[in-house]
Amino acid sequence: MTDTTWKYENFEPTGSAIGYRVTRKLDEVQSPFQKIEVYETTDWGNLMLIDGAVMLTTRDNFLYHEMMSHPALFTHREPKDVVIIGGGDCGTLREVLRHRGVRKAVQCDIDEQVTRMAEKWFPELCESNGDARAELLFDDGVAYMAGREAGSVDIVIVDSTDPVGPAEGLFNRAFYESCFRALRDDGILVQQSESPLALLDLVREMRGEMRKAGFTAFATLPFPQPCYPTGWWSCTLARKPGGAVDGFGFREADAASATLGTRYYSAGIHRGALSLPPFVAEALQA
Amino acid sequence: MTDTTWKYENFEPTGSAIGYRVTRKLDEVQSPFQKIEVYETTDWGNLMLIDGAVMLTTRDNFLYHEMMSHPALFTHREPKDVVIIGGGDCGTLREVLRHRGVRKAVQCDIDEQVTRMAEKWFPELCESNGDARAELLFDDGVAYMAGREAGSVDIVIVDSTDPVGPAEGLFNRAFYESCFRALRDDGILVQQSESPLALLDLVREMRGEMRKAGFTAFATLPFPQPCYPTGWWSCTLARKPGGAVDGFGFREADAASATLGTRYYSAGIHRGALSLPPFVAEALQA
Repeated sequence: MTDTTWKYENFEPTGSAIGYRVTRKLDEVQSPFQKIEVYETTDWGNLMLIDGAVMLTTRDNFLYHEMMSHPALFTHREPKDVVIIGGGDCGTLREVLRHRGVRKAVQCDIDEQVTRMAEKWFPELCESNGDARAELLFDDGVAYMAGREAGSVDIVIVDSTDPVGPAEGLFNRAFYESCFRALRDDGILVQQSESPLALLDLVREMRGEMRKAGFTAFATLPFPQPCYPTGWWSCTLARKPGGAVDGFGFREADAASATLGTRYYSAGIHRGALSLPPFVAEALQA
Repeated sequence: MTDTTWKYENFEPTGSAIGYRVTRKLDEVQSPFQKIEVYETTDWGNLMLIDGAVMLTTRDNFLYHEMMSHPALFTHREPKDVVIIGGGDCGTLREVLRHRGVRKAVQCDIDEQVTRMAEKWFPELCESNGDARAELLFDDGVAYMAGREAGSVDIVIVDSTDPVGPAEGLFNRAFYESCFRALRDDGILVQQSESPLALLDLVREMRGEMRKAGFTAFATLPFPQPCYPTGWWSCTLARKPGGAVDGFGFREADAASATLGTRYYSAGIHRGALSLPPFVAEALQA
């Protein structure tokens, strides 16, 4: 048996930690933005850390990637143009492209090294990078959204790190205003929104900034994500008003009959995630 | 600021760890069965460990206790007699007694010291211990169920530690046969069934043993539980056939109108938990 050691991420804001039994470090690169490391684990496949924070593992990333994409795509009536801000590991892009109606998916991550490391150590996440509908940009997501033509996008997915460091600018009114402008009527913005147990203040703040930017309806969908603090995570959907649709009913029959090969997402899971636990519903109303 | 340190549980079977930032050890006792420790944390209230395994924290135990009790009690048409095997922290007992139709709830934990430590460090969980309908026994749960009168129980809740050490006897056919015999027709056995992501083999084995004991219908309900390995846990319900009811439809209107003061459980959460993620459904069918 190889020597093993335990590698932990102590997450200061929640006072809790997640750890893995690792066999060795596979890779490390210091990009202009952050330090990216990849470890081999005994039970979770490969593990990517950015500046010491766990980003993903081979074994459980499907939970996050499926929930960052399919609820939004099945909520929109006919999503054709999708933009992913962040998402450098390409897992969300892969899920988006499973929807045959999507004609273009732009992924804009500031750090090319994240994608290079994903190609090397999580190749299954990058299997759709060569799809003719995919465009991979390595640029500032804030600038990209600010420059994007008004009314040219159906769904913006903000698949970023925590709101500190390079991703900080993705959690405020100015950025959300760019998203709002770029979206068509009925467009949807979806963003990873941290732990529904430990970081509800952040979800509330996000919604507040989105509201200032013009979004009027919100849904926060919790899902399990073992590799993130508390093991419980969420995405928040914000809807641009002005079109025919206002709420978060979704194309349930389409979701039920789709053969996307999802492992976590299903119509039933989607419907279930729309029922918030009482303590979350209460906190988000306050 | 007090000095803090990080305390981890390395969980060997999953190759993952959970940790907390703790300020100090509050208590420790070596019972005839196990070592019980209580720590004070910075963000999670008090933390109880048994033989080094995290049992509960003040902050997140409601998730587990509500899901170990309310789904089963709202699935049964009219639960009157409830037995809890294990459950020494008394949190499940408290939830069971929120149902006014329950006329008797017996809690049988082998280790009195767990309850004594809960009374001291988690007093809110013990607030119903004085209820006239409650009976606290400190005895072997296997022997208790073997001696329980046939057809005298509506719901058996097995709220135990992992299937190693003192709780090992609570995960096999012989014990389930005692439960089956003690249950009335339409009776329900519910047991904590570990992580739906990392420990599905165990859920399958449990169901197999339950089936050998006569149970014919099963439902595994996932829920978040940050303090347990992978942060994602489950309970498994098994139904005794022979009565009017066979499946896992539940008294949804009762659940929706109940004023139990639950923080996680709701009719919507219950319904959602009955929709298994595709990968779990597939693994449990195999």
